[in-house]
Amino acid sequence: MNGAESLVRSLAASGVEVCFANPGTSEMHFVAALDKVDSVRGVLCLFEGVVTGAADGYARIAGKPAATLLHLGPGLANGLANLHNARRASSPIVNIVGDHATHHTRYDAPLTSSVIDFARPVSAWIHTSQSALSVGADAARAVQAARAAPGQIATLILPADTAWDEANSVASALPVQGPLPVDSAHIERILQLLKSAKRPSLLLRGDALKAPGLHAASRIAAATGCRILCDTFAPALDRGRGIPEVERIPYFSEQIVDFLKDTTCLILVGAKPPVAFFAYPGKQSWGLPAHCKIDVLSHPHEDSPGALAALADGVSSSRKKSTLVPFKGVEAAGHTLGPTTIGHVIAKYLPERAIISDDAATSSAGVLAATRSAAPHTHLALTGGSIGQGLPLAIGASVAAPGQKVVCLSGDGAGMYTLQALWTMAREELDVTVVVFANRSYRILNIEMERVGATPGKTAAAMFDLSNPEMNWAMIAAGLGVESCRTASISDFEKHFADAMARKGPHLIEAVF
Amino acid sequence: MNGAESLVRSLAASGVEVCFANPGTSEMHFVAALDKVDSVRGVLCLFEGVVTGAADGYARIAGKPAATLLHLGPGLANGLANLHNARRASSPIVNIVGDHATHHTRYDAPLTSSVIDFARPVSAWIHTSQSALSVGADAARAVQAARAAPGQIATLILPADTAWDEANSVASALPVQGPLPVDSAHIERILQLLKSAKRPSLLLRGDALKAPGLHAASRIAAATGCRILCDTFAPALDRGRGIPEVERIPYFSEQIVDFLKDTTCLILVGAKPPVAFFAYPGKQSWGLPAHCKIDVLSHPHEDSPGALAALADGVSSSRKKSTLVPFKGVEAAGHTLGPTTIGHVIAKYLPERAIISDDAATSSAGVLAATRSAAPHTHLALTGGSIGQGLPLAIGASVAAPGQKVVCLSGDGAGMYTLQALWTMAREELDVTVVVFANRSYRILNIEMERVGATPGKTAAAMFDLSNPEMNWAMIAAGLGVESCRTASISDFEKHFADAMARKGPHLIEAVF
Repeated sequence: MNGAESLVRSLAASGVEVCFANPGTSEMHFVAALDKVDSVRGVLCLFEGVVTGAADGYARIAGKPAATLLHLGPGLANGLANLHNARRASSPIVNIVGDHATHHTRYDAPLTSSVIDFARPVSAWIHTSQSALSVGADAARAVQAARAAPGQIATLILPADTAWDEANSVASALPVQGPLPVDSAHIERILQLLKSAKRPSLLLRGDALKAPGLHAASRIAAATGCRILCDTFAPALDRGRGIPEVERIPYFSEQIVDFLKDTTCLILVGAKPPVAFFAYPGKQSWGLPAHCKIDVLSHPHEDSPGALAALADGVSSSRKKSTLVPFKGVEAAGHTLGPTTIGHVIAKYLPERAIISDDAATSSAGVLAATRSAAPHTHLALTGGSIGQGLPLAIGASVAAPGQKVVCLSGDGAGMYTLQALWTMAREELDVTVVVFANRSYRILNIEMERVGATPGKTAAAMFDLSNPEMNWAMIAAGLGVESCRTASISDFEKHFADAMARKGPHLIEAVF
Repeated sequence: MNGAESLVRSLAASGVEVCFANPGTSEMHFVAALDKVDSVRGVLCLFEGVVTGAADGYARIAGKPAATLLHLGPGLANGLANLHNARRASSPIVNIVGDHATHHTRYDAPLTSSVIDFARPVSAWIHTSQSALSVGADAARAVQAARAAPGQIATLILPADTAWDEANSVASALPVQGPLPVDSAHIERILQLLKSAKRPSLLLRGDALKAPGLHAASRIAAATGCRILCDTFAPALDRGRGIPEVERIPYFSEQIVDFLKDTTCLILVGAKPPVAFFAYPGKQSWGLPAHCKIDVLSHPHEDSPGALAALADGVSSSRKKSTLVPFKGVEAAGHTLGPTTIGHVIAKYLPERAIISDDAATSSAGVLAATRSAAPHTHLALTGGSIGQGLPLAIGASVAAPGQKVVCLSGDGAGMYTLQALWTMAREELDVTVVVFANRSYRILNIEMERVGATPGKTAAAMFDLSNPEMNWAMIAAGLGVESCRTASISDFEKHFADAMARKGPHLIEAVF
C-alpha cells in the first residue's frame, strides 16, 4: 500500500464517500488508489471551480464532507471562488491538493507556487503531509477538522512523494465535534427577553432553517408574536407547503433598514447581525436601527435547532397553533416569460423534496415569491456573492441525493463562470434541470450603477451587456452533452419544464426574455 | 473628478491603453470612468481567468502592461491561475481589484475576504489605496512596478470609496526601470569561458528569444560551436524561415538529462537552470550533468539581447556565417488527421508575423516540428503549466497586434478551463483562428500515469477520458458567437484552415482525431 492508498482508505474510514476531482500529474497515485477503494466515488469535473462548488452542494445536502482533488497551487486557485462561497455557507469540505514531491520543490519548476498561501484565505485548517507513513492520520484529522460544527474547510496538501512512497496504515475516524448544546439557563434568559421585548425578531441560519427548527421557531412566533427572519442568502432553507414560513431579509441596504426599522431586539440563532451586501455612498451598511438590542440564542457552532425547541417548549405552553404555508392552488403563470411566470410554472410542477440551487441573481426574487407554496423543497442560495456557484452546487446536491430532483436556476452571466459543470451533469447522468434566465446582461450591474451614483455612458453600458454576441445556451449545453431547448414563451417553457420534471436526467432550458 | 476617473486617467498617462475587465458592483465608478477616457479600451470578459490570461498575452506582444479589472477577492481568485502563468512569463500586468468601501469591511458582508492574501502568491507589488486623493499616484506607481524589468505583476486594491470620493489630480508617468546593461568586463569573462569550454551551451529566455537576440546567438554559435537552447516553455519565441533556430529542451525528465548529457558549461541568458517539470519516482529533477558548470551572461532583469550582441561581436570577428532556418518547401500534410499533419497545414498557410498561442499539450510537439520552416512567426507557450491559458492569451495577443493573425492551438481538455474566451473573441471581432485538438482525453495524464509508476484501473482511466459525453467544440463555439466547424480528415481541415487564414475574424476548427 502506498501513501495515496493509505489516504483514500483513511478518507473512506472517516466517512468520505465522494471525491470531486480535476487531477494532474502529481495526483496520479491518488487517482490510481481510487480504483482500489470502491466506497469512494470519483466524479470528474473539467474545471476546479466546478469541483469545489460541487463539494459545497454535496455538503449542504449530505451534511458531511466530500473530498476534492486539485492539482497544485493553480488548481486550488481555480477553485477558490467557490470555496469562498462554501466558507460563507459553513460547508464541510476536505480539499486534497497535490503538490510537487518534497525534493522537487527547491527547483522552482514552472508549476511551483506557494500552495499554502493560496489555501489560507478560505481554509480553517491547513496541513502539508510530511510522509507517506502519516498521510492516513492526516486524512482522518482533515475530516475531523472539516466536520467541526458548523462545518469548515480543511485543506490537506499532498506532496507527490507522500502519495507514492510506501505506507502501512489506514487511520480510523476521529471523533467529530458536533454542535455544542446551549445551556438551559441561557435559554431561560432569552425566553424572558423574548417575553419582555416589544418587537423582537429571531434571525435563523444554518440547521435552524431546516424543517424542525422552523417548526420550533414558528411555535415561538405564535406564542410571542416575534418575527422569524433569515438572511437574504441562506446556505439551505426548507420551504413550501406545510413548512412554516420565514421572512427573508431583502438585498439592498435601504430595503434592509426599512425591513428592520421597528425591531427593538434581534436574537441571533446561528446567525450574524444583518448588514448590507455592498456599501453605497451615503447609505447605511448596518441593517438594524440604532436602538435595537442584539442577543445570541446560539452561535453558529452551537445546537440551534435544539435551542429553538427548548425555547419553543418554554413559550408555547399555550399551544397556540403555528402558521404554516397553506396548501393552496398554484397561481396561473401569466402570459409573459419572466422570473415570476417561470416561478409559477416551477411551483406547479416541482416534485416534493426537490432541491433548488439558486444562482439567478436578479431573477431569483420573482421565482422565490412564486414558489412560496410549492411542494416542500430545499432552497440553496449563493452564500458568498461570487457568482458561478449554481451549476456546480447542483452537481453536488444531486450526487448527495440521487433520488431527489434538483432544479438549478442560473443567470446567463452567472452560469458562464462555471458552464463546464454541464459536462459532468451529462457524464454522471444527474437528475438536474437547469433553467437559464437569459436576460442577456449583468442586470444587477445596471441597477447598481445607478445606485452607487455613477452615470453610465455608452462604454459603461456595454460592459453589462451580454447581447453582443448573443449566447445560445441551448447550443452550448448540447455541445457539452446535455439535452437542451430554448424557449421564448411561457407556454413553451411550461411544456419543457413539465417534461423535464416528469423524466430523469440532465436537461437545460434556456428562457429568453 | 472622482477617484476612479483620477485612476483611469493616471493609468492612461502611464501608457496603459487596454483594460481587460470583469467588473461588479464595487467597480461601477471605474467602469463609468472608462467612458470619459477614450484612450483606455475596455474589453469585457465573462470570467476572470480570461481577463488575466488576456492581459498576459497582451503583455507578451505589446511589451507593456494592460490593466485588469477584477471584482473583490473571489474575482481575483478566479484570475490567479493565469496570473501564475503570467508570473512565470515575467509579463507586466497591472491588476485593479475592487474591494468594499473602507468603512464597509468591518461588517464582514458575504463578499468580504482578504484580497491582499489572494494577491500575494502571484504579485511582486501590492498596494491598497487609502484615499481618492492618492489613487492616481498609486496607479502611476503600479505601472512603474509592473514595468520593472523583466516585467512583473502589480496589484492595486481599490476600496469602493477611494473610487467614488472626490479627487483632484492625474498622476504623470514615473520613470521605468528597464533592463540593466551587462558590464563589458563581465561579457569579456564569458567570452573567454566560451572559447575555452569544451561543449558549452547558451540557454536563452525573455527578450533574448526575439529575432535580434537569436541572430546574435547564432553568430556566437557559428564562431564557437556552442549550442543555443531555450526552455520547453518560453514566453515568446520568434521562429520560422530566415530566423536562426534554437534547440528546445524536451519536456520529460529523462529526455532532458539525455539532451544535456554532454554539456560541460551552461551559460544562462535571462534564464534559470533547466529542471524537470514534475518529479518522478527514481528520476532526476536536475537537468544538467553533475560536472557541468553554470555561468550567467545576464539575469532576467538585465539586457540579454545587448549582452548577446556584445558577445557576438567579441567572438565572431571571423564573420562566419550563422545558420538560419532555410526557405524550403513545406512538406505534404500526409493523410491522417493529427498534430503533425495539422502542423504541416499550418506551416503551409500561416501568414508572416502570425502569433501562435500554444496550449495544445501533447499535440504541441507535432505542430512545432512541422512549423519549423513556416513563415516567420512568434510562438507563445504555456509558461506556468496551468492549462487554460491559450484561448485568453490569444485574445490579448490579438488586441495588442490587431494587424497580425493569431492562431490558437488548444487541447480539448485545456480549452475547457477558459472557453468563455470565445465570446470575447466574437464580441471584439478578433482575428483569431482557434484549432482544438479534440483527442477526447487528458492525454498527458495517460502518459504520466505510466511514468510515475502507478497502475491505472478502470476508474483511473475514466478520470482522463473526455469522451463520455463527447464535447462538440464546434457547437459550443457557435453558442458563444464564434463561426466554427468540425473536421475529421486532413483534407477537410486544410480547406477550413486555408479559408480561416484568408479571412479576418474569429474562427474555431475542431479537429477530431
